[in-house]
Amino acid sequence: MTAAAKGRLTGVGTGPGDPELLTLKAVRALSEADVVAFFCKKGSAGNGRTIVAAHIRPGTVELPLVYPVTVETHKDEADYRGPIADFFDRSAREIAAYLDQGRNVAVLSEGDPLFYGSYMHLHVRLAPHYEAEVIAGVTAMSGCWSMAGLPLVQGDDILSVLPGTLSEEKLTERLSDTDGAVIMKVGRNLPKIRRALQAVGKLSEALYVERGTMSNGSAQRLADRDESPAPYFSLVLVPGWKARP
Amino acid sequence: MTAAAKGRLTGVGTGPGDPELLTLKAVRALSEADVVAFFCKKGSAGNGRTIVAAHIRPGTVELPLVYPVTVETHKDEADYRGPIADFFDRSAREIAAYLDQGRNVAVLSEGDPLFYGSYMHLHVRLAPHYEAEVIAGVTAMSGCWSMAGLPLVQGDDILSVLPGTLSEEKLTERLSDTDGAVIMKVGRNLPKIRRALQAVGKLSEALYVERGTMSNGSAQRLADRDESPAPYFSLVLVPGWKARP
Ligand SMILES: C[S@@+](CC[C@H](N)C(=O)[O-])C[C@H]1O[C@@H](n2cnc3c(N)ncnc32)[C@H](O)[C@@H]1O
Ligand SMILES: C[S@@+](CC[C@H](N)C(=O)[O-])C[C@H]1O[C@@H](n2cnc3c(N)ncnc32)[C@H](O)[C@@H]1O
Repeated sequence: MTAAAKGRLTGVGTGPGDPELLTLKAVRALSEADVVAFFCKKGSAGNGRTIVAAHIRPGTVELPLVYPVTVETHKDEADYRGPIADFFDRSAREIAAYLDQGRNVAVLSEGDPLFYGSYMHLHVRLAPHYEAEVIAGVTAMSGCWSMAGLPLVQGDDILSVLPGTLSEEKLTERLSDTDGAVIMKVGRNLPKIRRALQAVGKLSEALYVERGTMSNGSAQRLADRDESPAPYFSLVLVPGWKARP
Repeated sequence: MTAAAKGRLTGVGTGPGDPELLTLKAVRALSEADVVAFFCKKGSAGNGRTIVAAHIRPGTVELPLVYPVTVETHKDEADYRGPIADFFDRSAREIAAYLDQGRNVAVLSEGDPLFYGSYMHLHVRLAPHYEAEVIAGVTAMSGCWSMAGLPLVQGDDILSVLPGTLSEEKLTERLSDTDGAVIMKVGRNLPKIRRALQAVGKLSEALYVERGTMSNGSAQRLADRDESPAPYFSLVLVPGWKARP
């Protein structure tokens, strides 16, 4: 088979939830795809798939890439890497089989594909062998601060994007030493994140956003949020805005 | 005049350059706008205006907000704040005049409006008095790493967004202490940025992107870029990618 006969891989950023935050380019890529692949959990549709529902042509092959259970349960354990690497290898092979048949495959990626997205694990495996393009998307953090109308950083501000999985000490250190901050992966880390913000005197400015830009999304001061674990789709914003010209 | 009779303010993220990176929501906002306002320099169309050109309805009022010359010449000087604050005050008053007439005003913002965008200075002045909405956009950094196919951060990586205006010492410190990094505002800071990356052993991984996602955009290793000043639309990417699962 010649290279020209192979299909094209496209990583499609779907934005954070509101289907209207899809780009024109993403919509076009979906209309040109023979196969639409998406990550999901067992028994769930996958958020990316839900966001693009209106734009999948009838007759498009759908390829769910179902995370192994280990993603949920062993994230911090040493034996996590093996099963998840196998999963990405297997997913890449499934996609490669379609590309080898000359079919165009779009892989959905919530938010922006190369910003903490699973798509990148497929991209590094497939892009050396196939024509590949990445379509940038609106990130979850942009969706969240826009929904809240919260200017995040301006001028010569520094922005730090931090995973809520950092230790309390590390979080505190990082938060004390930045202008704006975004804390992703909140979940059960919420009490720790709150303590770290309190320690650096920034709790009162911090905003908690849940399911940003989705129809059931909401934003509130983190100080007012109860201590129950946050849902997967949540993050914390700390504005860097200091003096306004 | 009652509140209901007032127009609506919308901050519209236009994405970084490729007109196809406009969101469906931005396109709709443009179709609903009576007035489209945009920042520009004297004698230039304004990049946001160029990006959305195909989506402005005939009959739409266009309101260029022309930066005072001081933006270019006095950025680091103490007397910068006065003129630029006056400019934002004046721009807000011009927009308010339309809103008071019941006209909907869309203000274009390159990339994402609340991420280092001038729009935020209008938002804080007007949102307390008028119905206001912000439409998130694809940021320049997302556009640049997508164009280059460069996975930036994954898993528990920390991302630091740094202005190239930081001192060499501060830049070096920040770059040594992060996983991924984005350096905005390159311009004449290019030699300093290069030295800082060299000092922390990350120069060889750093990517320089110019006019990302625009038709004349390009990406190259920063190590291969000559020392001439970078254009306004340029940034440097340092991937945080370390181990791949
Ligand atoms: C694996 S990362 C994916 C990030 C995505 N690629 C992006 O561009 O924003 C998942 C994290 O993103 C955040 N997230 C994603 N969608 C969100 C939403 N709609 N509202 C709030 N947070 C969201 C959560 O913090 C979650 O832990
Ligand atoms: C005032 S900030 C605006 C950022 C914008 N609001 C965003 O969401 O990315 C301007 C800086 O963004 C970067 N930038 C904007 N557009 C770009 C592009 N198309 N390619 C590379 N860098 C760009 C440059 O570093 C420039 O100094």
